[in-house]
Amino acid sequence: MEQRISMTTLAVPDVAQARQFFEGGLGWEVNAAPSPEVVFFQVIGGVFALYSRDALEKEIGRGVTRDTTGAITLAWNARSESEVDETFEKAVSAGAKPVKHPEKAFWGGYSSYVEVPGGHLLEIAHNPFWVIETDGAITLPPPQPD
Amino acid sequence: MEQRISMTTLAVPDVAQARQFFEGGLGWEVNAAPSPEVVFFQVIGGVFALYSRDALEKEIGRGVTRDTTGAITLAWNARSESEVDETFEKAVSAGAKPVKHPEKAFWGGYSSYVEVPGGHLLEIAHNPFWVIETDGAITLPPPQPD
Repeated sequence: MEQRISMTTLAVPDVAQARQFFEGGLGWEVNAAPSPEVVFFQVIGGVFALYSRDALEKEIGRGVTRDTTGAITLAWNARSESEVDETFEKAVSAGAKPVKHPEKAFWGGYSSYVEVPGGHLLEIAHNPFWVIETDGAITLPPPQPD
Repeated sequence: MEQRISMTTLAVPDVAQARQFFEGGLGWEVNAAPSPEVVFFQVIGGVFALYSRDALEKEIGRGVTRDTTGAITLAWNARSESEVDETFEKAVSAGAKPVKHPEKAFWGGYSSYVEVPGGHLLEIAHNPFWVIETDGAITLPPPQPD
């Protein structure tokens, strides 16, 4: 089983509202929205999607949490601390709620959290130990034994 | 704000148990586990992590849901329907719970869902409209107007 995550999907109560945040607020380009219930964005190596919570419940045949502090987080890594500050402000201006303002993190980086429309958490951080390549991808250093 | 997701993190009650599933069960290579609370895996274009739920709660300063049917899903895309069948069986053998057995999906593909140790949902699917490249990445067709 090759080691990859092909798609990360946020289940949201209001797809149009969440789309407006990423597309209108952050300026991300929508790849396709084949129905009002789903929106696809191309991201590096894969796909990021917004999907109707009702539709997901129907698809998987059971209820999906209404709890907005999910047990999954997404991170957007910046190239510098100042880019974290700028991006945090941009996200808040675009309608995200500040959860944790940018600050030095215990792990040696600089990190912040916002809650995006639909309730999910997005970390906006700079990790000085992880190099971001020209295309935005991250390649970790060689595996390290525990 | 460049269009990417740098890291996807599953918050889990038992990091060692979840690690065992991905590493021992699925055969994924761990990149680093700098503390017992976190494990990093290199995936295409970014990072996939397992993180202690208690540690995440401390980091973000609020509670994280105990609800296991999260409002985020992760997908692993296969190159064929038979690879979906094989991978679904492999995941179940490795300790995942079957949620939806592989079947033809309404959107034209072939899809299944499992619940991995820690409670998160992973879709294992084949999408005939999305080509998987040699390295496992997906590049969507050009953007399509709504």
